[in-house]
Amino acid sequence: MQKTGILGGGQLGRMLLQQAANYPVETYIMENDPECPAAHLCHHFVLGDIRNYEDVYNFGKGLDAITIEIESVNVEALERLEAEGVKVYPQPSILRLIKNKILQKEFYKQHDIPTAEYVVVQHKKELEQYSAFLPAVNKIAEGGYDGRGVVIIKNERDLEKGFDAPGILEKLISVQKEISVIIAKSADGQTAFYPPVEMVFDPRLNLLNYQVCPADVPENTLWRIEAIALKVAKALKSPGLFAVELLVDTNQAVYVNETAPRVHNSGHHTIEANACSQYDMLWRILLGYPLGNTAVIKPSALVNLVGENNYNGEVQYLGLPETLAIDNTYVHLYGKKQTKPGRKMGHVTLTGDHTKDLIRKALLIKEQLRVIA
Amino acid sequence: MQKTGILGGGQLGRMLLQQAANYPVETYIMENDPECPAAHLCHHFVLGDIRNYEDVYNFGKGLDAITIEIESVNVEALERLEAEGVKVYPQPSILRLIKNKILQKEFYKQHDIPTAEYVVVQHKKELEQYSAFLPAVNKIAEGGYDGRGVVIIKNERDLEKGFDAPGILEKLISVQKEISVIIAKSADGQTAFYPPVEMVFDPRLNLLNYQVCPADVPENTLWRIEAIALKVAKALKSPGLFAVELLVDTNQAVYVNETAPRVHNSGHHTIEANACSQYDMLWRILLGYPLGNTAVIKPSALVNLVGENNYNGEVQYLGLPETLAIDNTYVHLYGKKQTKPGRKMGHVTLTGDHTKDLIRKALLIKEQLRVIA
Repeated sequence: MQKTGILGGGQLGRMLLQQAANYPVETYIMENDPECPAAHLCHHFVLGDIRNYEDVYNFGKGLDAITIEIESVNVEALERLEAEGVKVYPQPSILRLIKNKILQKEFYKQHDIPTAEYVVVQHKKELEQYSAFLPAVNKIAEGGYDGRGVVIIKNERDLEKGFDAPGILEKLISVQKEISVIIAKSADGQTAFYPPVEMVFDPRLNLLNYQVCPADVPENTLWRIEAIALKVAKALKSPGLFAVELLVDTNQAVYVNETAPRVHNSGHHTIEANACSQYDMLWRILLGYPLGNTAVIKPSALVNLVGENNYNGEVQYLGLPETLAIDNTYVHLYGKKQTKPGRKMGHVTLTGDHTKDLIRKALLIKEQLRVIA
Repeated sequence: MQKTGILGGGQLGRMLLQQAANYPVETYIMENDPECPAAHLCHHFVLGDIRNYEDVYNFGKGLDAITIEIESVNVEALERLEAEGVKVYPQPSILRLIKNKILQKEFYKQHDIPTAEYVVVQHKKELEQYSAFLPAVNKIAEGGYDGRGVVIIKNERDLEKGFDAPGILEKLISVQKEISVIIAKSADGQTAFYPPVEMVFDPRLNLLNYQVCPADVPENTLWRIEAIALKVAKALKSPGLFAVELLVDTNQAVYVNETAPRVHNSGHHTIEANACSQYDMLWRILLGYPLGNTAVIKPSALVNLVGENNYNGEVQYLGLPETLAIDNTYVHLYGKKQTKPGRKMGHVTLTGDHTKDLIRKALLIKEQLRVIA
């Protein structure tokens, strides 16, 4: 049995392990919390810091293959492991590129992949010379995650909100839709795409409201999205699974926003709604099997379950039976014992024939299924 | 989180645990082999003998609920646990009834559920007085499993093959089809049925060749099957998941052959082919959630992967990449390290629109995917 390690033991690791049990693979997880969502579903749990060189190197040196479920890992250790013959998917070079927003933007530019216009800034003071570039978004080069490390600079008065750290200043796009495309790339260079997913945000809270697949975009725009996703897939020279997040502006122009080199929240629905899930797909890549079928079985909508405001402590779920009473509704709870405001605690996927109906039900579930303490 | 234990750590336990990770449940497994298929996928693995009173009682006494993945468990311990307030699904009384083929047949008779005519026999010598009852099948009352404990007595010469143990002698039915219906029953008495599955046997080897769902039976026969399954569901007073195996004879008469009080091989396909899988369904029952939707998403065929003759030892799979290259093909390997002739090592489910096409592909996979050492 191939020995495969995953750096990170959160919900993505958990769902990878649920799928791993179908294949001949011995699984290893490293995380600094022995009660993390993935800890009890692997063959071997290793307590350690995924950002620490020694920890990652020691974890990986006896393995056949290693992957990640979060980008904030020690890339140097992965580079050494790769040099020593461990299959590291995604490859450390890609991880290094994607972890740094300056390098990531340069990568798109080099490969003629459309992305919002930007300038590189080294510190806060430097922002001042770009007042003609506003409105814009300031993103720190490294360490941002889930909305952290990103700030909108609308005008000169906002400049003081900018980060005093290396990063980029990116022209603000008049976003009409946010789209995600999951791409699979095998070691022998085969690629497969999942049908685009539309991520609908709450304009007031700036939080993901729901996701829906297939995305509701004009056919011309869909072609543009697919052509760009293909370009990204070609440019990424590494085996692995990638989530390409794209923005469609009010003129139907399409830009790559960023790429995640791993299984992704925007692909959770593939467990029930696509022939081969993103988790199954990554195992196929890691184990050297042919890529799976990405076709949609049924349209789907998905809502994240996040910890409600003002609740901290041992998690309780309200409305679970009511939600499970709705046909074709798939609840995934991540097994986190403690909730806090905004923490991702689970998700619910709905499948059906009509996206409008799915969205209505998804919003109902958002109201009725509450994560409190 | 509800603490739920499973007696037995084989593939059925493994697939239950893959699904458990979606729900707020703390899982416990008891099995006498620390490397059994389910051992690494639970929160707490307990080494023990599921047939031993003390082991089962000690395992269950701190739990909220307990279920089984095999019938050969210590029922007395489960009875004590039930008396002490642990939810035992299926209830021990049902387990006691089903474990004993004499009691099981009496149960069908009491409830006017059609089953093959039979007589009770206490020992081999007694068989001789039933020569007018032949051809018949002699089944031992307790301990039979997967075809063991069953022998066909065609004529008087075969009488010596009979068991010298309590059991039944059952009139041989001229079987045209073997059908299985999975039934779910919740604690509040709700029931749900899965669409009937047809099990097709190899007449030469008397081994399951493949399963297909929906079953190919005339509509009248389907109604009879469903009416009988409903009768069984009503008669079983216990919450749980049950597999009712039925025989259709050459005159389209339908008989219950036997019932298994647990998730079942004939329900593996529900993972991909039905809205709610049998594994999901049993968790819903154990955790007190509403029953799920049993509807077929797509027709399916399923083949078991068994250890090939003449191979004993560390398992190797030949033809796995070729199988995974076929669209909508789902491989489930059970993680057993050692193969031996006839051992169930995994299964493959195929989904699609046309059962004829699915059967053709299933038989191809049976040829190309080999389990050797």
